[in-house]
Amino acid sequence: SSLHHTCQWGTGTRWGTAEATETGMSRLSLSDADKQVRDWFVETTKSLGCTVSVDAMGNIFAVRPGREDGPPTCAGSHLDTQPTGGRYDGILGVLAGVEMLRVLEEKGVETAFPVGVVNWTNEEGARFPISMISSGVWAGDIPLDRAHGLKEVGGGTATMKEELERIGYLGSMPASHTAMPLAAHFELHIEQGPVLEAQRQKIGVVQGVQAYRWYTVEVVGRGAQAHTGTTPFSSRSDALLAACRMITLSHDLATSHAALASTGILTLHPGSVNTIPGRVTFSLDIRAPLDSTLDTLEAELKSRFATIASKETTKGLDLAVSWRTDSVSPAIHFHEDCISAVREAAKAVCGSDSLARDMVSGAGHDSVYTSRHCPTSMVFVPCRNGVSHNPEEYTSPEDCAIGAEVLMQSVLRYDRL
Amino acid sequence: SSLHHTCQWGTGTRWGTAEATETGMSRLSLSDADKQVRDWFVETTKSLGCTVSVDAMGNIFAVRPGREDGPPTCAGSHLDTQPTGGRYDGILGVLAGVEMLRVLEEKGVETAFPVGVVNWTNEEGARFPISMISSGVWAGDIPLDRAHGLKEVGGGTATMKEELERIGYLGSMPASHTAMPLAAHFELHIEQGPVLEAQRQKIGVVQGVQAYRWYTVEVVGRGAQAHTGTTPFSSRSDALLAACRMITLSHDLATSHAALASTGILTLHPGSVNTIPGRVTFSLDIRAPLDSTLDTLEAELKSRFATIASKETTKGLDLAVSWRTDSVSPAIHFHEDCISAVREAAKAVCGSDSLARDMVSGAGHDSVYTSRHCPTSMVFVPCRNGVSHNPEEYTSPEDCAIGAEVLMQSVLRYDRL
Ligand SMILES: NC(=O)NCCC(=O)O
Ligand SMILES: NC(=O)NCCC(=O)O
Repeated sequence: SSLHHTCQWGTGTRWGTAEATETGMSRLSLSDADKQVRDWFVETTKSLGCTVSVDAMGNIFAVRPGREDGPPTCAGSHLDTQPTGGRYDGILGVLAGVEMLRVLEEKGVETAFPVGVVNWTNEEGARFPISMISSGVWAGDIPLDRAHGLKEVGGGTATMKEELERIGYLGSMPASHTAMPLAAHFELHIEQGPVLEAQRQKIGVVQGVQAYRWYTVEVVGRGAQAHTGTTPFSSRSDALLAACRMITLSHDLATSHAALASTGILTLHPGSVNTIPGRVTFSLDIRAPLDSTLDTLEAELKSRFATIASKETTKGLDLAVSWRTDSVSPAIHFHEDCISAVREAAKAVCGSDSLARDMVSGAGHDSVYTSRHCPTSMVFVPCRNGVSHNPEEYTSPEDCAIGAEVLMQSVLRYDRL
Repeated sequence: SSLHHTCQWGTGTRWGTAEATETGMSRLSLSDADKQVRDWFVETTKSLGCTVSVDAMGNIFAVRPGREDGPPTCAGSHLDTQPTGGRYDGILGVLAGVEMLRVLEEKGVETAFPVGVVNWTNEEGARFPISMISSGVWAGDIPLDRAHGLKEVGGGTATMKEELERIGYLGSMPASHTAMPLAAHFELHIEQGPVLEAQRQKIGVVQGVQAYRWYTVEVVGRGAQAHTGTTPFSSRSDALLAACRMITLSHDLATSHAALASTGILTLHPGSVNTIPGRVTFSLDIRAPLDSTLDTLEAELKSRFATIASKETTKGLDLAVSWRTDSVSPAIHFHEDCISAVREAAKAVCGSDSLARDMVSGAGHDSVYTSRHCPTSMVFVPCRNGVSHNPEEYTSPEDCAIGAEVLMQSVLRYDRL
């Protein structure tokens, strides 16, 4: 009920009528709705005995003291969503962390060291197009200046720094694992895939995260913008036709490497029915379990895209293709101590080994970056039809509760360790 | 110089630095810039002895009296441009008409019947996505209500009627060939293709216009909007991938029919790097000399697009494709009397038969619709590299002058006839 309470800020599309909660979410990072849920998070965790600090990327750390001082063992995830996302991706992980704080407080539990909850900024990469950017800055992998200067997608001009300032979450603490070290990081998340549901299992013990890379590809025709009715195919350099061939090829090549390739954004210029587009820009997201697969796929795509551009180039009209790498997230293997803590917690909560399974995450998470500087693992729970990034994303209250219990027990086990 | 004078309203991208006039145009129909050039047109033609009337589509008719009363023989074209268009497409035809009025006035020429100049509204179809819509209403082929209610492209909400009212050009005269009959219609236009330039010829005697049709194709996935990192290809229904296959196929099928197919607009939803698009909408413009070719091509595309959609449909996730026909412009053959008038005028102006050639227009023009209710033909002049719908569109002052002379002589020859 806390989770649904916080979904009043940034409520998205309604998909069902049986329950008031049958809507998606549209809470883009650093929007007004994001500010409202952040304010709730700060107020609530303070009331549960936490000290709250905000860093220069707007990451919020709520820390509850332990018997001894030291870096906190944290549950962390994110409160931002996709433009047409659901109520669970990210939100469940933070809210289960808050629930943990509530249980500890109500039961008067004392931990050995501090424990806490983190809300990481712009995990989705949906508004500012680098996913996990703020845990990336914390980890020292993404320069603060680059992150602060990053502009929103869709032609807007607002930067992350301006928006952090605007909503009052540009913190004074450096965004860094040295200024804010963590003892360990555990993240509860919906699986975003079909396996647990299909196997009727309750918990995924996450071993790591597959590699992925994001690019912006631009196809530009010099002199290519021309009339659709009077320009024969032999005199065209059609930037959209070339882009369509590239997107189709990326799918086919990825298939042959057992990898994934996807395009979620495409814009073209000038955008008139009877003018051949002179410029097309599209996003390209490639993923595979091994970094080396992506090395090969990237090299092949670069060479084959160049061939497509030169084939669509005609009669001295240039068609140029250029690539910008927006982010690189290498394959990650989580820490054995944390993996064990999750596995043991799952056994204790579910009462049986067979209701949990080891898995690798297809999606990136802030745990990718925390794992570079502190022991990390993740807890997955099933989601209906494996669907996420969709308003209809759904995990039952029972499965949310099981996940939250496993998360709390993992944190407490690690704290004791 | 009148032409360049009027290009102060809606000046577009600069492409050259040698001359002040080396810019394109961006004068979308019914914009503020369009109002300014219309005001200039009304004032100038009135000062040249014309009576000006405006109809319910904002078409402007400037008519100069003749010895006898009767329907005027008109030169007509359009003052609106593409979003990134040039200084000649449409503008040359209207400005040459004004030049004709100036010559008649300065030389005190009396015509047998009235002659005039027409500025047709939204010929380009670039802002309101039906080309030649206002001559189409005049011809009785497009219902006034449909035209008045047409919304601008790109998600804007303004309708043609609202914008006509806003800029003060919603005229009181019915938009109809019965309210405003024409004796004949002659249109001077840049060729928008490479033939005249390549053959070093000066005048195209236009026999007719090829057939073309515009569609909006929508591809929608039910449940298809999902995570790019966790959704295997086998569980996707990727609306963009399907659209890319359709656009590529439309090119290949058109090639095999010696027809054209082009996509100038494509929008997708929701537009996030890591979300598989659930909905894609794109424009499709197909053209061929014969209507029957388009009948065949349309039928094949409809069937093959459905096949693509069903191939990308997986695991019970629907991918539906739907077509909306936005406009149909059948193949047109112009009137022999007008074609002869242009041919004779070209011979007289150029001093030789060999500098003119018969041609068919690849692009649509308002002359398509006028030809349904009055004898019509067109005069083409060369344009550099055959390029139009591009800021770099260019026709030399000498070629503009030759075209304007042929236009005036054609009108005068027909008036005498
Ligand atoms: N979990 C999640 O959706 N993360 C966003 C980054 C990604 O695209 O994998
Ligand atoms: N001449 C011209 O560009 N007309 C617009 C209609 C078309 O696309 O053919």
